[in-house]
Amino acid sequence: MSRSVILLSGGMDSATVLAIAGSRGETCFALSFDYGQRHTAELNAASAIAARAGVAEHRTVCIDLGQLGGSALTDSSIDVPEAGGQGIPVTYVPARNTVFLSLGLAWAEVLKADKIYAGVNAVDYSGYPDCRPEYIDAFQAMANLATKRTVEGEKLLIAAPLIHLSKGEIIRLGMSLGVDYGLTVSCYSATDVGAACGHCDACQLRRAGFIEAGVPDPTRYVG
Amino acid sequence: MSRSVILLSGGMDSATVLAIAGSRGETCFALSFDYGQRHTAELNAASAIAARAGVAEHRTVCIDLGQLGGSALTDSSIDVPEAGGQGIPVTYVPARNTVFLSLGLAWAEVLKADKIYAGVNAVDYSGYPDCRPEYIDAFQAMANLATKRTVEGEKLLIAAPLIHLSKGEIIRLGMSLGVDYGLTVSCYSATDVGAACGHCDACQLRRAGFIEAGVPDPTRYVG
Repeated sequence: MSRSVILLSGGMDSATVLAIAGSRGETCFALSFDYGQRHTAELNAASAIAARAGVAEHRTVCIDLGQLGGSALTDSSIDVPEAGGQGIPVTYVPARNTVFLSLGLAWAEVLKADKIYAGVNAVDYSGYPDCRPEYIDAFQAMANLATKRTVEGEKLLIAAPLIHLSKGEIIRLGMSLGVDYGLTVSCYSATDVGAACGHCDACQLRRAGFIEAGVPDPTRYVG
Repeated sequence: MSRSVILLSGGMDSATVLAIAGSRGETCFALSFDYGQRHTAELNAASAIAARAGVAEHRTVCIDLGQLGGSALTDSSIDVPEAGGQGIPVTYVPARNTVFLSLGLAWAEVLKADKIYAGVNAVDYSGYPDCRPEYIDAFQAMANLATKRTVEGEKLLIAAPLIHLSKGEIIRLGMSLGVDYGLTVSCYSATDVGAACGHCDACQLRRAGFIEAGVPDPTRYVG
């Protein structure tokens, strides 16, 4: 059986990606990051999702991105805005996907995994540059040259199966695979699984996604 | 004045690279990593080198690569070998340069830096795939697409000025720029600055470098 590393944030997209990998019969190794994000509820969600999916292993790597600053998600001096701003938002964490994929690359090499799955999405991507297909392609090209295993001729695919799907399409796909979105967290200010502010970009995208999918939203919005 | 992020390990190469950036009149921000390496003497060396160079700031980011396993440098169950093995050695840390450059990319974006300097070297590279010019080029292409700042049109150069130099050439260049190699640590088993096993790959390369450069080696080898 082939092995896959799945970057698991605790949000809807990565939970869906984990279900996709599982449905393909791959042995799943889930990787989460404690990176100084405000919403540690995410990490609790990731654990619950990984357990429910029956992954072979779930690891959480600590890395203090807040020390490098620059994002409302890791820097308490920057307020998380309500939805609707222009351009790339202050919730953007510099180079986050690059850092996370790099750590996925490290673990994939140790595990001799064939794929790294990431739940990046170019449709509802909030303007983050590292969620675009051309970015993923460039990371793939770099990864091919970066590790002992790939240099020795083994394939390692950076898989982003949600990249062209809308939030509604993601939800419908996930539900067809048995994902329990009640276990997932989207809100930038969430303090526990199942409670959400209802106002931030992430909450707005989530709400709109369930409406688009035409299915009930399991989230408890407090605002 | 332009700003540069310098990946500073505490070894000879990165100390030389820091001196190069300083000699170009750039404002230097040094970045080190506490990644579970056995040789924490490196981190003490990095602090001393940064202080001596008068950097604008020196930060050390903690990241537990040992949790992902797979290297003699971070996994205490794998012995550090003596010099002379074939192929890519067990001291190879999976995706290390990718992880470090990614974190450099994050800090560079926050600082609005124009360059990230890395002391990678393709000549005395111990067979690590992520020390080759084609790898650096691929990382550059990925970085151009990865961050808000680069996507908005600002340049960010991944600078590897030592990549084609021999160890002896690096030492001669560094000494011409005033680098005190007595502050640096190479040995994989070093327990403090200035003491080295004399047997590991890194010690052998270091010894040979000083001989090639024709200058006295300040290192105290215990074996």
